[in-house]
Amino acid sequence: MSKLVGSCIIGQSGGPTAVINSSVLGAVQTALANESITKVYGAAYGITGVLNDTLYDMSKEDPAELELMRQTPSAILGSCRYKIADPDKDDTDYRRLLEIFKKYDVRYFFYNGGNDSMDTCEKISRFMASSGYECRVIGIPKTIDNDLWGTDHCPGYGSAAKYIATSCVEVCLDAHVYDVESVTIMEIMGRNAGWLAASSALACHAGAGPDLIYLPENVFSIEALAADVRNVLKRKKTVFVAVSEGVRDKDGVYISEYGSNLASQKDAFGHSQMGGLSATLAAILKKELKIKTRGMEVNLLQRCASHCASLTDINEAYMAGKDAVLSAVAGKTGMMAAFHRVPGSEYQCETKLIPLSEVANLEKTVPENMMNDEKNGMTQAFIDYALPLIQGEPQRLLKDSLPRFAQLKKVQA
Amino acid sequence: MSKLVGSCIIGQSGGPTAVINSSVLGAVQTALANESITKVYGAAYGITGVLNDTLYDMSKEDPAELELMRQTPSAILGSCRYKIADPDKDDTDYRRLLEIFKKYDVRYFFYNGGNDSMDTCEKISRFMASSGYECRVIGIPKTIDNDLWGTDHCPGYGSAAKYIATSCVEVCLDAHVYDVESVTIMEIMGRNAGWLAASSALACHAGAGPDLIYLPENVFSIEALAADVRNVLKRKKTVFVAVSEGVRDKDGVYISEYGSNLASQKDAFGHSQMGGLSATLAAILKKELKIKTRGMEVNLLQRCASHCASLTDINEAYMAGKDAVLSAVAGKTGMMAAFHRVPGSEYQCETKLIPLSEVANLEKTVPENMMNDEKNGMTQAFIDYALPLIQGEPQRLLKDSLPRFAQLKKVQA
Repeated sequence: MSKLVGSCIIGQSGGPTAVINSSVLGAVQTALANESITKVYGAAYGITGVLNDTLYDMSKEDPAELELMRQTPSAILGSCRYKIADPDKDDTDYRRLLEIFKKYDVRYFFYNGGNDSMDTCEKISRFMASSGYECRVIGIPKTIDNDLWGTDHCPGYGSAAKYIATSCVEVCLDAHVYDVESVTIMEIMGRNAGWLAASSALACHAGAGPDLIYLPENVFSIEALAADVRNVLKRKKTVFVAVSEGVRDKDGVYISEYGSNLASQKDAFGHSQMGGLSATLAAILKKELKIKTRGMEVNLLQRCASHCASLTDINEAYMAGKDAVLSAVAGKTGMMAAFHRVPGSEYQCETKLIPLSEVANLEKTVPENMMNDEKNGMTQAFIDYALPLIQGEPQRLLKDSLPRFAQLKKVQA
Repeated sequence: MSKLVGSCIIGQSGGPTAVINSSVLGAVQTALANESITKVYGAAYGITGVLNDTLYDMSKEDPAELELMRQTPSAILGSCRYKIADPDKDDTDYRRLLEIFKKYDVRYFFYNGGNDSMDTCEKISRFMASSGYECRVIGIPKTIDNDLWGTDHCPGYGSAAKYIATSCVEVCLDAHVYDVESVTIMEIMGRNAGWLAASSALACHAGAGPDLIYLPENVFSIEALAADVRNVLKRKKTVFVAVSEGVRDKDGVYISEYGSNLASQKDAFGHSQMGGLSATLAAILKKELKIKTRGMEVNLLQRCASHCASLTDINEAYMAGKDAVLSAVAGKTGMMAAFHRVPGSEYQCETKLIPLSEVANLEKTVPENMMNDEKNGMTQAFIDYALPLIQGEPQRLLKDSLPRFAQLKKVQA
């Protein structure tokens, strides 16, 4: 492969994670230090920043501030949820991208995101190849959902899992504080893949976790939930339930809609926001079992709680960004920097490249062997899989005991 | 004051905090080491454990496990919300307490709780005095709400405030990730006193906090909120609002009931759980401003997130428990171990005793000078007050990168 010299663009896309900026840092620092890369640009708000010609010159940033990206959650360059057209149907955006790429002599494009972003990446890669403009495109994965195909796990998942597990331990202790029968239901993100809700099982490993865990991989029924809860109540007064927001009944109807369907018949506001899954389940169980129930959501923090991040996750996220750049410089394109777990008793993770076309728009769900037979809890196979991902406490720079996050100058190119 | 020798009971009451067990640890370790105290009992589930004769012999615990109470949230002895009668009207419970006190030769009673618990404490103290049974009673304050009268601040508040401020910084970064107009509304605990919602202003001090903060101390109106949000939207696209769950309109109606009142007209489940304040405000603002809105609750973690505790708070909580015991042994009774902030530029806090009768059933709200003139934000006076309370990171014992909490044997006396 011939040496390709030119500038690069790095963009972030989709919902943020606690470590997506660590990936960008890995890419930026590696690119700034690489002699094949002449200029390093950050795209403002993902691909829309490229389309709008809003690029930041990353060489203008203070290296110490850049370094703080390691502990800064959310997408520091800004993100977007822009669905790019199929280039065979509408190539307007692609022609604009090509124009910008030519303007800045962009020969490397790195896109940091989830399923949709890998799809975007794949389309851009395909278009550039067909247009004869040499540009290497590598995807850098991120998603708290852990649902990307072809990679052992995704950067972002380990920190989200650690936050959820830690929160579950604490809430579990709190839930047991009174000597009265009660059910606490914790709603956790995840529409189709239950990896996040599954991570609540790590709290069980720590000695204080949910009694019951439900994932969207399995058909959910209120009757089965009530029966499971009754069973737990036979041996203890407090029942702690973790459930994926995406659980559906046998007809494929989201349980979260049970509540809003009822509310929508009369709700003057906007019913989809009126009570989520946990509130709905709490209300149903309260009526059914005649005991105290409480629903709660693990909110946005599951994707941005860098104060509870996994050092392993931070370092792997950095590695993904770094290796994406090194691979591109070495001649690779149309690939994603995925993770391979080296077999053995000691956890070890390395990057491997997989074609974007194999990743785009596929979803990896939780496999059968990680769920118990009753489909209301996880097995040791899951713990063995997930526990290494949450290990390690990062050194955090604080100011007045509060997070000190990276503040970029964002000098426009 | 004559030397009083006998056993002691320590109980916990009301909603837990991240540091209430640190107070119990301070009391237990001090009592175990004191020669006037012959036996140290923990009451199972607060005063109900005394009434039910369920006491734990704290000398049977492994000292290393006890020590872990410093980092263990929730009330490790169990808590209750038991409203004790006025002894002048019904002394049944008191006669039973006296019976138990005599059975175990209890001469010291320490009760760790909030407003209601101080009331319980005061009544027990009064009854014992009138019955001629010598028993010294000291209250140990705790409440995340920070609403106890007569003390500069309450153990538990500093850690809750730190968790809220840290979460606000992280959510604020997350909320700004897209280049679209949006309003994020964070609902924070606090029915009558706005100290917890106010702590979100510490995130502003850290550079990424709410644009608008509303406390229950002031009359709330949807119109004023909408106008404030519109004002912020003139200068930036993303608006971040923090609001106390207890905000009320000019007629004293909880805004949180606006949503459930609507829902209740038709809701088959139990409307009070169908959407809280943040969901209601998000729905209203969405309709009003025609932009993306999101409501979220800072959930139970604000009272149990020991992973984000303040070392200052942990140490002061310990000090309150310790000084309660030392004061009682020195002859004090009918008092609460309150905090006095020593005047000066350097933060310093010491305990002082105040009569329980002055504390019981009073509420301390946020003073005028800590709120801005528009009543939609906090002043520097609040930052100066609250910032010292969240300082310091505790050393935490972890196992597999998850919290390792105290596991007590709870050997019954």
